Amino acid sequence: MIVVLKHNPNQEQVNGLIGWLQEKGVGIHTSVGEANTILGLVGDTSKLDIDLIAALDIVEDVKRVQEPYKNANRKFHPEDTVIRVGNTQIGGGSLTIMAGPCSVESEEQVVTIAKAVKASGATMLRGGAFKPRTSPYAFQGLGEQGLAYLKAAKEETGLPIVTELMDLSQLPLFRDVDVIQIGARNMQNFDLLKAVGHQDKPVMIKRGMSATYEEWLMSAEYVMAGGNEKVILCERGIRTFESYTRNTLDLAAVPVMRRLTHLPIIIDPSHATGKSWLVEPLAMGAVATGADGLQIEVHNDPAHALCDGPQSLRPEDFDRLAKKLLALQAAVRGMEG
Amino acid sequence: MIVVLKHNPNQEQVNGLIGWLQEKGVGIHTSVGEANTILGLVGDTSKLDIDLIAALDIVEDVKRVQEPYKNANRKFHPEDTVIRVGNTQIGGGSLTIMAGPCSVESEEQVVTIAKAVKASGATMLRGGAFKPRTSPYAFQGLGEQGLAYLKAAKEETGLPIVTELMDLSQLPLFRDVDVIQIGARNMQNFDLLKAVGHQDKPVMIKRGMSATYEEWLMSAEYVMAGGNEKVILCERGIRTFESYTRNTLDLAAVPVMRRLTHLPIIIDPSHATGKSWLVEPLAMGAVATGADGLQIEVHNDPAHALCDGPQSLRPEDFDRLAKKLLALQAAVRGMEG
Amino acid sequence: MIVVLKHNPNQEQVNGLIGWLQEKGVGIHTSVGEANTILGLVGDTSKLDIDLIAALDIVEDVKRVQEPYKNANRKFHPEDTVIRVGNTQIGGGSLTIMAGPCSVESEEQVVTIAKAVKASGATMLRGGAFKPRTSPYAFQGLGEQGLAYLKAAKEETGLPIVTELMDLSQLPLFRDVDVIQIGARNMQNFDLLKAVGHQDKPVMIKRGMSATYEEWLMSAEYVMAGGNEKVILCERGIRTFESYTRNTLDLAAVPVMRRLTHLPIIIDPSHATGKSWLVEPLAMGAVATGADGLQIEVHNDPAHALCDGPQSLRPEDFDRLAKKLLALQAAVRGMEG
Amino acid sequence: MIVVLKHNPNQEQVNGLIGWLQEKGVGIHTSVGEANTILGLVGDTSKLDIDLIAALDIVEDVKRVQEPYKNANRKFHPEDTVIRVGNTQIGGGSLTIMAGPCSVESEEQVVTIAKAVKASGATMLRGGAFKPRTSPYAFQGLGEQGLAYLKAAKEETGLPIVTELMDLSQLPLFRDVDVIQIGARNMQNFDLLKAVGHQDKPVMIKRGMSATYEEWLMSAEYVMAGGNEKVILCERGIRTFESYTRNTLDLAAVPVMRRLTHLPIIIDPSHATGKSWLVEPLAMGAVATGADGLQIEVHNDPAHALCDGPQSLRPEDFDRLAKKLLALQAAVRGMEG
Repeated sequence: MIVVLKHNPNQEQVNGLIGWLQEKGVGIHTSVGEANTILGLVGDTSKLDIDLIAALDIVEDVKRVQEPYKNANRKFHPEDTVIRVGNTQIGGGSLTIMAGPCSVESEEQVVTIAKAVKASGATMLRGGAFKPRTSPYAFQGLGEQGLAYLKAAKEETGLPIVTELMDLSQLPLFRDVDVIQIGARNMQNFDLLKAVGHQDKPVMIKRGMSATYEEWLMSAEYVMAGGNEKVILCERGIRTFESYTRNTLDLAAVPVMRRLTHLPIIIDPSHATGKSWLVEPLAMGAVATGADGLQIEVHNDPAHALCDGPQSLRPEDFDRLAKKLLALQAAVRGMEG
Repeated sequence: MIVVLKHNPNQEQVNGLIGWLQEKGVGIHTSVGEANTILGLVGDTSKLDIDLIAALDIVEDVKRVQEPYKNANRKFHPEDTVIRVGNTQIGGGSLTIMAGPCSVESEEQVVTIAKAVKASGATMLRGGAFKPRTSPYAFQGLGEQGLAYLKAAKEETGLPIVTELMDLSQLPLFRDVDVIQIGARNMQNFDLLKAVGHQDKPVMIKRGMSATYEEWLMSAEYVMAGGNEKVILCERGIRTFESYTRNTLDLAAVPVMRRLTHLPIIIDPSHATGKSWLVEPLAMGAVATGADGLQIEVHNDPAHALCDGPQSLRPEDFDRLAKKLLALQAAVRGMEG
Repeated sequence: MIVVLKHNPNQEQVNGLIGWLQEKGVGIHTSVGEANTILGLVGDTSKLDIDLIAALDIVEDVKRVQEPYKNANRKFHPEDTVIRVGNTQIGGGSLTIMAGPCSVESEEQVVTIAKAVKASGATMLRGGAFKPRTSPYAFQGLGEQGLAYLKAAKEETGLPIVTELMDLSQLPLFRDVDVIQIGARNMQNFDLLKAVGHQDKPVMIKRGMSATYEEWLMSAEYVMAGGNEKVILCERGIRTFESYTRNTLDLAAVPVMRRLTHLPIIIDPSHATGKSWLVEPLAMGAVATGADGLQIEVHNDPAHALCDGPQSLRPEDFDRLAKKLLALQAAVRGMEG
Repeated sequence: MIVVLKHNPNQEQVNGLIGWLQEKGVGIHTSVGEANTILGLVGDTSKLDIDLIAALDIVEDVKRVQEPYKNANRKFHPEDTVIRVGNTQIGGGSLTIMAGPCSVESEEQVVTIAKAVKASGATMLRGGAFKPRTSPYAFQGLGEQGLAYLKAAKEETGLPIVTELMDLSQLPLFRDVDVIQIGARNMQNFDLLKAVGHQDKPVMIKRGMSATYEEWLMSAEYVMAGGNEKVILCERGIRTFESYTRNTLDLAAVPVMRRLTHLPIIIDPSHATGKSWLVEPLAMGAVATGADGLQIEVHNDPAHALCDGPQSLRPEDFDRLAKKLLALQAAVRGMEG
């Protein structure tokens, strides 16, 4: 950590700060510059409160040198995390394809789609039972009944289930769910993160609409700090000034997360763009960029889907896309040589 | 609602759409243009799913003409909402000043500050017992104990309390709280909004870091749809590319909310900027813009505050500021004449 | 165009508006709704000033149905534009690779790099002679001398040159330049756009840091309105709240531009991210997404480049990347089959 | 400047870097931390290229401690800059009110408005002769003829003129213009900034739509580096995800600029919001925040203005507003005591 002092600081206060830091076991190197004096703090600075130091009268700025996340940090955990779910895995060179409807509508619907996407190469079934909707007047999901339909589809196809948990009161209903999804709007619902940190189930954290990489990793850190190391990251578009697409998909998140963390990274092109005709090119882009997998909306009747119809593919479109994605991944892997 | 059809749409499908809309009781006016045909839908379109229509093959775009919020809409409720809390009120021409520490640290601290801010003109006491912190390793607030200290300060001073609810499991502890605050990160925690919609207590909703005006009003609508009409809006800065300030305070929110809704609007310059020296000029700007009130952080020892020290004022600074704000409001009111 | 009237508008003013519109040769369909009356304007509305209508007392909102760009619009020009430059082409299924140093520093430097990138598969030479630098104290480019060095490299290798024009006073010096680049900061320098619209040379327009798709296409329209139809679009990242990367590369721009316009689209991953280790994954992503080409910075000594060193590849890295990109394009093309 | 080295860097390269820095006359303090070694550079580091150092293999990050602007920096020029224009001044406690039409349309129009706004208290006349318009098909301004009309209005009223320069080829026509305005889209048109840096006329630089405070000040630095110290800053809204208003007015820019620079700061609420009903509340907010002045659009017939009608006030509205603004400034000044 680096503390930049103001020009001509009160020397007594400087000494007070230095003494206080030394008490905390932090070493200090002082550099006297033309305009500012700089204190370089060495040793374990992770317990120091950066805001507290920044608030001092004599301090102009405090700059952190180390990342604030530890469990999620690749520096302290160089090996890729690979998460086994049912008889598939996430990370470690596989291509995870989570496919299914935005909302679970009926047992028939979800079983039909599950069979179709499995035949096309999907490795997991996605589908919403609890739905975060902007309007209180919109369809809110089938809830517990929806989870039962997902379970039926899982029994029929063997596909593990990933579905969203919106509130910790719903946790007891998630027994048969394989991967708990934390939605973008709940990425900083810290009580929810703490609760799933005590579960023995993988957790997939969608990036908040305006979350920085660091904040996203800090949300992973919340889950990991509770003891649950099985965390998956999912980029689903960030909010920018561009309104033609629902959000702006940030594919740089793939190589950046690869460098900063050991956790797997999934891309959701359906929610990112809100337009079904953008799913294929961006899914292809995600695979070429090195993503560990994709989450894709598929609906047997997109025009009558109860929510988010415009961004869903038909099973036949998904079939064509899944084959292209697998071929692309094989081609890209071949180039690594 | 306006439906823009694609160029040369399949006429059979167009007839199908028109028939379906008519069944829903919606009237249709067709305008055949050079490049596109437009359907103008009249009557009660609030039950139509805009996404579903947009997903149809023959549809290029759907544009909504009416706002999706009703209870919060000034069009249907022209009178300003005025909310009584203890012996003060929010809205209706008063200037609400909510002041207090970011985090409650001890009974002595909060009672001392409460007395000071009351003497300076504050009308409510703010203070965090449950704290949303980006890092799991940061101080998370005193929780229930913090609420007890706030209650003590309220008994001592008579100031009503506003404090943040982070999860609905904490609701039973909020008996003595006067205004429930929903934080920016929870603005779209819909289960939490539904829960406070069934309470008989005012709810103050902070604007999400990247929430549009409409999304913010839809969160108010969630609470109001549950029967709780006592909703207050609080602007606390939005996230932009500018990183010198923590967020960018959007003071246009004051007149915009005044026009779109009848609910009171409060400004929080402390969190918006993250710098104590910006609190005064922006608080002055907020009052001149017509805000119903302010939420301001005050700490007796900002440099040792457990969180958010850099944005807190000292009691003596707050005293000077509160007097200026009240004088400014009187001056501005005099000009309305 | 759709005009939404206010609730209970002054009927005389409505009739005035309708009469005025009819004089302009525009047909009008009126839809009387519950809350609002809507006028659907049909016929040629491109000459109507949307702002003027929106300013009327009786008007609540005006919504455009048609795109404001014509020459650049795929609807009126369904065939892809293919631009021949020297013995290469941009668009039409080829993969354009523009490579070279950020800044031209010496004849030796640019000739050396030009030879290397040609050998690796580059189809054009990029290099800055006039450099837009944020600071007046930073190196501003070699100017006319730099153009001479580029010309020497072109003579040596046969690679066509693309380089940035910053001001129309420099235009006479651009005789030997093959493609004029308009930088992101000048995307809305309308006098410059008009000037290059009268040239008989391809123009590549970089997307402004906060430009919407529509504004970007309107800048293309400026050039095309002057008679120059050879316009290329280049996405180089947009400004968002994320500051880890210099900008956020928006790869959705590739399929979106493919749909909205017939002009070729190039991706610049070097400037978008500002980090050389992000160039490869994002260049791969761009090709898989369907881009017509890439602009990539290559420097024989990135650590001593006069500007933008951190985002440059070494020739050996570029060689490996170019081969991968060409193999990827072949693989992707094979899948279209 | 602080250089953070990577974990376990090549020691030979570190010594090479240190030697090179010492040759440049920079002193170095080394702090060996647990995870990283930090070099604190002291002395005159303004000539060091931060990007070049950041590109080195052994370097993880470089953090600047000092601002990159000098002439514009309040640290080196503590006194407020006050700019005299005709018989008025900008800065130094006065309230500058620049008022007039968006576009100059006719001599009668601009003279009529100039007389009206002068009578209401305006201190300068604004009006566009050269207009930056997003569409090549929109009205582009009257150009030289428009400047002549402005001159006529100046002769009639004595009000100094501020008007936009779009290209340096127009500079010879600006003889009678008192303040040259650089538009938001040209904030980083560096050739234009250099050109006005050699003029003996005040220059008002509008903040670019996505420009940071630092970039804005660097544009001021470009002008000042050429010898022209008479620079005025004008905030006119930044681009965010919120699309209800045209831009988001950032009033924190007032106190932030007051601290970082000695240059005067003007607020333009008309362009920032694009809605005339938002001009009054935000203009009031700007004065209360401490702005040196306002730029406000006034039109005698907003509904028929050739451009930007929706954001213009009528003269009678402006009259009421100007009186309120002057009263507010007097009231605020009275509070400073």
